[in-house]
Amino acid sequence: MSYDLWYWSGIPGRGEIVRLFLEALGQPYRDLARDRGDEALVADRDSRRDVYAPPYLVVGDSAISQAANILLFLADRHGHGGEGEDRYRVHQLQLTIADVAAEAHDVHHPVGVGDYYEDQKAEALRAAAQFRSDRMPGFLDHFEAAIGDGGWLVGDDWTYADVSLFQLMEGLRYAFPRRMDAVGADHPKLGALVERVRQLPELADYLASDRRLPFNEDGIFRHYPELDAA
Amino acid sequence: MSYDLWYWSGIPGRGEIVRLFLEALGQPYRDLARDRGDEALVADRDSRRDVYAPPYLVVGDSAISQAANILLFLADRHGHGGEGEDRYRVHQLQLTIADVAAEAHDVHHPVGVGDYYEDQKAEALRAAAQFRSDRMPGFLDHFEAAIGDGGWLVGDDWTYADVSLFQLMEGLRYAFPRRMDAVGADHPKLGALVERVRQLPELADYLASDRRLPFNEDGIFRHYPELDAA
Repeated sequence: MSYDLWYWSGIPGRGEIVRLFLEALGQPYRDLARDRGDEALVADRDSRRDVYAPPYLVVGDSAISQAANILLFLADRHGHGGEGEDRYRVHQLQLTIADVAAEAHDVHHPVGVGDYYEDQKAEALRAAAQFRSDRMPGFLDHFEAAIGDGGWLVGDDWTYADVSLFQLMEGLRYAFPRRMDAVGADHPKLGALVERVRQLPELADYLASDRRLPFNEDGIFRHYPELDAA
Repeated sequence: MSYDLWYWSGIPGRGEIVRLFLEALGQPYRDLARDRGDEALVADRDSRRDVYAPPYLVVGDSAISQAANILLFLADRHGHGGEGEDRYRVHQLQLTIADVAAEAHDVHHPVGVGDYYEDQKAEALRAAAQFRSDRMPGFLDHFEAAIGDGGWLVGDDWTYADVSLFQLMEGLRYAFPRRMDAVGADHPKLGALVERVRQLPELADYLASDRRLPFNEDGIFRHYPELDAA
């Protein structure tokens, strides 16, 4: 079977970790807003009482939303989400990865998603300083310590948390290149994990294709040079 | 068996939804930081590479963290997390409830958790206005629409998402009493669900006990009158 995924067509955003996992699993899917446009997404979303926001996956008559929940659902069906109690270790790492992504977003929108960046730039400068100095190292240290001897977060094979951590690290590197350069040497296992995911044979075609959307200034991770520093 | 829960002793916070679910399930647990103090919690947390932050549940040699993940784990063992694909409907609602709680926290700490409220009050006033006018009604409308004919979010019996939504609504009512009064009549099913959870026989003893911590100005939901308006 093929899955139907709905997510905004112009940004990697929270949809990208679902795409990456579907690709790595080798599961066919349609990326419907990229085929039909964001207006079709809005119309579909508004017809579903269970969905607060994209991304969501249509399965039969129902929609499964919240990116971490979609990953859990896919892993329960197709694997790569850990076995037994490891399932919860994978999921808790995923939820912390999602927390970091949300914080990285709020750095450029500290006052609220409804205002433009330009209208909250002064606040963003303060938020960015704290994110770079306190929050970012704490999170990276946590992930570095969580990586096991096999080079993956949980167990001997990649899980959706590894794939998702790859995307988080790529996003942080896009948004905060100087800061990430400065702290990179402190997190060698994390750097190696990112390269290991990038080299997964399952992802090679996708990462080289134009289906893989670049980061941009409409997404979660935005490169505003004034918010970055070593 | 009895569970061991670690969470800060002085605030309801993210630990309270775990406590409420354990109580509603009738599962015995020790609330270790309330017995031994927050210093014992810090020492225990720092010894666990898998834990980024409390709350966490100790199960054998490992710790299960992230509140939504703990609820999922407990529901998989003891029920009240939905059956079959409903498990994912319950979990996605839980993750959206967690998103709202995080936003409600960020209203009083828009610049960063490392600064005092007093040092980001101007930013908080802006964030609060947007949260009250745009975000809060959108979230409440979503939950109102999700409640089924039986009065619960998913299926014919309560799940952890209902219990968690009760705590969210109590927190919002504590932090934004004037705003919640103003929008309450628009969400009759939500109001009824809150009262239905409050009246659950499984929760009666707990809610009447001094183990049930009141909201306060150290937690997620804080009552700063200047951040509230109808």
